[in-house]
Amino acid sequence: MKTHAMVCHAPNAPLVLEELDLAPPGPDEVLIEVMASGLCHTDLSQIEGKAAPYPFPVVVGHEAAGVVRAAGAAVTSLAVGDHVIALGIGECGQCSHCRSGRTNLCELFLADMAAQPSPFALHGRKVSAYTGVGALARHLVMAERNVAKIRRDVPFDLACTIACSVATGVGAVLHTAHVTAGSTVAVFGLGGIGLNVVQGARLAGASRIIGVDINPLRDGQGRRFGMTDFVHGGETDTVAAIRALTGGAGADYAFECVGNAALMAQAVDCTRIGWGCTVVLGVPPDGQTLSLVPFQLQLGRTVKGSFMGNMKGRSELPGLLDHYVAGRLNLADLVTHRLPMDRVNEGFAMMKRGEAVRTVVRFGGEGA
Amino acid sequence: MKTHAMVCHAPNAPLVLEELDLAPPGPDEVLIEVMASGLCHTDLSQIEGKAAPYPFPVVVGHEAAGVVRAAGAAVTSLAVGDHVIALGIGECGQCSHCRSGRTNLCELFLADMAAQPSPFALHGRKVSAYTGVGALARHLVMAERNVAKIRRDVPFDLACTIACSVATGVGAVLHTAHVTAGSTVAVFGLGGIGLNVVQGARLAGASRIIGVDINPLRDGQGRRFGMTDFVHGGETDTVAAIRALTGGAGADYAFECVGNAALMAQAVDCTRIGWGCTVVLGVPPDGQTLSLVPFQLQLGRTVKGSFMGNMKGRSELPGLLDHYVAGRLNLADLVTHRLPMDRVNEGFAMMKRGEAVRTVVRFGGEGA
Repeated sequence: MKTHAMVCHAPNAPLVLEELDLAPPGPDEVLIEVMASGLCHTDLSQIEGKAAPYPFPVVVGHEAAGVVRAAGAAVTSLAVGDHVIALGIGECGQCSHCRSGRTNLCELFLADMAAQPSPFALHGRKVSAYTGVGALARHLVMAERNVAKIRRDVPFDLACTIACSVATGVGAVLHTAHVTAGSTVAVFGLGGIGLNVVQGARLAGASRIIGVDINPLRDGQGRRFGMTDFVHGGETDTVAAIRALTGGAGADYAFECVGNAALMAQAVDCTRIGWGCTVVLGVPPDGQTLSLVPFQLQLGRTVKGSFMGNMKGRSELPGLLDHYVAGRLNLADLVTHRLPMDRVNEGFAMMKRGEAVRTVVRFGGEGA
Repeated sequence: MKTHAMVCHAPNAPLVLEELDLAPPGPDEVLIEVMASGLCHTDLSQIEGKAAPYPFPVVVGHEAAGVVRAAGAAVTSLAVGDHVIALGIGECGQCSHCRSGRTNLCELFLADMAAQPSPFALHGRKVSAYTGVGALARHLVMAERNVAKIRRDVPFDLACTIACSVATGVGAVLHTAHVTAGSTVAVFGLGGIGLNVVQGARLAGASRIIGVDINPLRDGQGRRFGMTDFVHGGETDTVAAIRALTGGAGADYAFECVGNAALMAQAVDCTRIGWGCTVVLGVPPDGQTLSLVPFQLQLGRTVKGSFMGNMKGRSELPGLLDHYVAGRLNLADLVTHRLPMDRVNEGFAMMKRGEAVRTVVRFGGEGA
């Protein structure tokens, strides 16, 4: 069949609307009509060629919510009409990783990262689907293991955020760092990921949540999600400021949500001796490395990372919407801008200017 | 009073026997007659000026066992005649770190790291005590919190090893990485620390323990401590070899016990996606940094470090001798060479040539 998608043909080229060929769903696949897709900074990194693992042309976007319109004969857990999110990291439930209880990185996801399958083609040439999703398309064809059913009572333009930004931020707190109640937490970068780290830390019962950003607008936004203190990164010695706010000791936990190796090093530096734990979430430009002084680690510090917060796509992500419905997570203030599909380039321009937290593209379908 | 010690007067200078002034024990201090002191590679790094936090002249050594000969009036937990080890990291038991249950880095230790107190002087000039111990001396004067009482039925020349090498290695497995039964473990460097990581991994029930060393002699030595596989580091692509030995996945845990940032990066690289955990134990030359690709961490890897394996000096270290007496830890094969005090330079020469695992200096006192 045919579908429409916003395609990036080359690094830094504006996205253009194209009619693409879409492979029909196989026996274990579903056809999804996309209702809403959030824009993420890693999409921009792919567009700009800075952290661009997928060859051009590419359909970016990986934060899609929609409705199942067709299901292959072997699909058992999804049905036509189900509300779903598309998963950058699927969950087969069968592999050693899925059964380990230790990681969300399904072995089939790791295989897909190498193979980069895509249902999209243009004039007979493959068009990449970023993170295996390519959410800026009217329709997706995805394996059952890469699709999670969600509750029907959350609007698509909020529900889509759990597919990346909410999972990455909240999951990093609860499923990667395992922040304990009463802890002090520093969050570097208060965009779509960082604000979710902030609200994840609030959910975990952190006593002090310090946000760092060069954009002073993030001060007010951060407080809406539970931030207790703001450090203006551009104008302050960030590490010293965090130390001062934590009685000189440093933070129990730090999260880097920008994708900047120098900030990652600051994050490590601002954690306390004895048990400071840093989680790196941002995706830096290709080639950037994090430089650590081993002695800092030997003073009891830990550095780790995760994708999607180490939350399993099918069995754990949908539960984030229960937190939202119960009033424990704030999704409404995350989505600051909504755009139709053909204005998506404006969304990335706003992202570059730091104006939006999350911009969601609405595709105008039923309930969007 | 006066005592004798082996003093290093300048980087790379041979140690020379000196008669030093020793401050008398204060109310909370004890006088220890040293019976045996192990030589550690970090002592050599201090001597060579490579990782040398203490100003010269310095008494190196930090792995001492001996007997309490005098105790200040305020000392309550130690008595004259007690067998003890001197602690590079003391345990006051009162500070927030000691009470946290999360770290062995007593706050008073951290203060001492900055202040570098020493009881030694020569012609009125302070002589540094390396790690606050300075174990290559006939006598030490140390605060009660920096001394641990040990059982009397283990010879001093074996007991001294728990003060650094056994604690660092076994503790890194049990108290830092928390290795689980059935895990695969890679150990980079099979010296005094690495062999103790190997036997710690055996104690934890690891199913596969892969040792890496450029010295082929370590193959046979490693197997005596529980190593199941040997990779000859100088002649093999180490990371590929470890992958091959672990079914392609990589090791669950890796330990760097050399103090080389490039090896630390290899250790991270050889751990598995999803939950690979690397512990850096070696102390590299000043200025060396560990360079990490954030994406490696985001694939579920953790990097951490510890000093003394994150084991508390007074409440946890002495228990290692119970493991020895019960036959669960091998101390006898660790101590490959014994020397009198005045031949200590030969011990460091053997260390440089890779001939010794642990050389212990015996001071010729009672029971040594």
